[in-house]
Amino acid sequence: MSQRIQIFDTTLRDGEQVPGCQLTTEEKVVIAKELELLGVDVIEAGFPISSPGDFRSVEEICKAVTEPTVCGLTRAVEKDIEVAAEALRYAKRPRIHTGIGSSDVHILHKFNSTRDQILERGVRAVKYAKKFVEDVEFYAEDSGRADLEFLARLTEGVIAAGATVVNLPDTTGYLLPEQMYERISYIFENVSNIHKATISMHCHNDLGLATANTLAGIRAGARQVEVTINGIGERAGNTSLEEIAMALKVHKDLGFETGIDSSRLYPLSKLVSGMMRMPVQANKAIVGRNAFAHSSGIHQDGHLKNSSNYEIINPEDVGVPSSEIILTARSGRAALRHRLQLLGFKFEKLDLDKLYERFLLMADERKMIHDQDLMELVG
Amino acid sequence: MSQRIQIFDTTLRDGEQVPGCQLTTEEKVVIAKELELLGVDVIEAGFPISSPGDFRSVEEICKAVTEPTVCGLTRAVEKDIEVAAEALRYAKRPRIHTGIGSSDVHILHKFNSTRDQILERGVRAVKYAKKFVEDVEFYAEDSGRADLEFLARLTEGVIAAGATVVNLPDTTGYLLPEQMYERISYIFENVSNIHKATISMHCHNDLGLATANTLAGIRAGARQVEVTINGIGERAGNTSLEEIAMALKVHKDLGFETGIDSSRLYPLSKLVSGMMRMPVQANKAIVGRNAFAHSSGIHQDGHLKNSSNYEIINPEDVGVPSSEIILTARSGRAALRHRLQLLGFKFEKLDLDKLYERFLLMADERKMIHDQDLMELVG
Repeated sequence: MSQRIQIFDTTLRDGEQVPGCQLTTEEKVVIAKELELLGVDVIEAGFPISSPGDFRSVEEICKAVTEPTVCGLTRAVEKDIEVAAEALRYAKRPRIHTGIGSSDVHILHKFNSTRDQILERGVRAVKYAKKFVEDVEFYAEDSGRADLEFLARLTEGVIAAGATVVNLPDTTGYLLPEQMYERISYIFENVSNIHKATISMHCHNDLGLATANTLAGIRAGARQVEVTINGIGERAGNTSLEEIAMALKVHKDLGFETGIDSSRLYPLSKLVSGMMRMPVQANKAIVGRNAFAHSSGIHQDGHLKNSSNYEIINPEDVGVPSSEIILTARSGRAALRHRLQLLGFKFEKLDLDKLYERFLLMADERKMIHDQDLMELVG
Repeated sequence: MSQRIQIFDTTLRDGEQVPGCQLTTEEKVVIAKELELLGVDVIEAGFPISSPGDFRSVEEICKAVTEPTVCGLTRAVEKDIEVAAEALRYAKRPRIHTGIGSSDVHILHKFNSTRDQILERGVRAVKYAKKFVEDVEFYAEDSGRADLEFLARLTEGVIAAGATVVNLPDTTGYLLPEQMYERISYIFENVSNIHKATISMHCHNDLGLATANTLAGIRAGARQVEVTINGIGERAGNTSLEEIAMALKVHKDLGFETGIDSSRLYPLSKLVSGMMRMPVQANKAIVGRNAFAHSSGIHQDGHLKNSSNYEIINPEDVGVPSSEIILTARSGRAALRHRLQLLGFKFEKLDLDKLYERFLLMADERKMIHDQDLMELVG
């Protein structure tokens, strides 16, 4: 029997704070609904105290989705927690995500504090958040560089205070997978109340190791992973949702499963990339334009009897259109809409009519309309 | 004392075979010279029998570089090996890279053969290549899915036949880091003549794990890594040179070093991306536009006393221009050339003069010329 890994999507929080990626509330709601259909367990919807716009986005996302937990970020500050609780008041399953720096460098230089004071502030923040919601996640910022003995004490303390989830982020993207495995194993061995909470991985990709570090954390006992579509996020980004979902699916023998409907990965990747104006490189794992290019080549050559043995992932499993359909001036609205949907776009009827007119002009001129032309058309 | 990891760059072979990435011989020579300055140990220059163009590229690269070994790819076929040897005849340090499929699925479906026949063909190819060059690398294609006992026998056989390097590729990008570690460890424990050759890692990024798998191979004893600039290559690409170089540099405690001059990574990334028409996503580790964006933010805020503790990599260490210089219509040719060089472009004097004229027109219109404008100018 497989163990369930909770998928905590932070595309709309850690992803959205990237320069140039800012979204309107309406755009965030569109993405949140798609994340619900994708099957994520938690949507981190924003940082409510940071701006009125972020507050409103969290509020609207709470109204828009039913199944996933909706989470709001806070510092370990009472006002932050109050504002987050208010933004989350329409959520069916609200979660407050509060926390504080846990490495000595953060404790000294960012908080001008001591380990004991930090522990006390963390515990106090969790207890305060518990007054508003049952589900409280605590993050130990920069835990990848924290003193392990202290990190274990902090984890034990916030779980005793009621934290349902403890997030141990590698904030600077520094760790190697074997180090992550050892650190998380240490926490499991040295925190007496560890089984009263879920341990969460939140990795950054500064050395290209976010996916491997997240998997190492799962091996050591973590049961929630914090990820983003296309791996967007601060600097080199966060762990890619699509890479974790497919690694666990391809390696079923590990005994883990997620609630992700993988056939929605590619269209949602396109939608997020387009809305956030963050192109995905052709050689991005799972969702890059060329990710399955070789397999197609093999298919076209048609000289392999047993193609499933040559592919570790079937492109259709992640929603990559199985063959390129070329549209022409003879194609109808339905074909155009279908193709655009496969590419991750959605349109109201009126917009589609206007688009179709421009499509016909383009098709007359270019004869064959490839996906690339459609992207330009929608541009 | 650190152990040296050999950097085998296959940007011009595995990278260049990606659809849309084809380069002229002249472009390949430019990149090869830059790879030499970067400090790679081996340049895989092409697959000489595949086309007259590839043959000529290998030949010209041999003439153009002095320090690195130049390597040509072949199948385990006599004609391939003869043609590769001819293409490599001007190399100071020639290497022939020959090999054959090693997994049962490759043996059965690609070669319609048996393990024993494959072993015999591999051994014969190595012996034949040794007639032409001293340095012969053998690749066991799809070794990530090969039977381990057979893979050990094959490795032992080709080393006995004279292979100086044995490349154990994860051709489909399937393995997890702990699996790679266990497999390579098995090979070290079960191949009696293992210390007469160098074991090489060649990983693909289909699950986002190429860098982690390569590092796992190094931990298990591999001392050569096959990588590409920007991680380009088949499907989701190969292991990124820049990620491996920086992971080993940041984690000096592991006890490994490379010959890479990291300050050349960013300019070379730009050069390759431009020539191959393969944009690098903003959140690409090490060389993405945003890879150090947060650090810059922190610097600008100026409220951190101890910024080196917050950065795992100093942007200048990888050649990222430390601050954006904004050019204007008052900037001279030298400033323009300097900035373009930092962005990875090179120009002859005449080209620069023409570019400068266009630059002035643009600067008059736009007032401030950012890097983005320069990229547009160069097109």
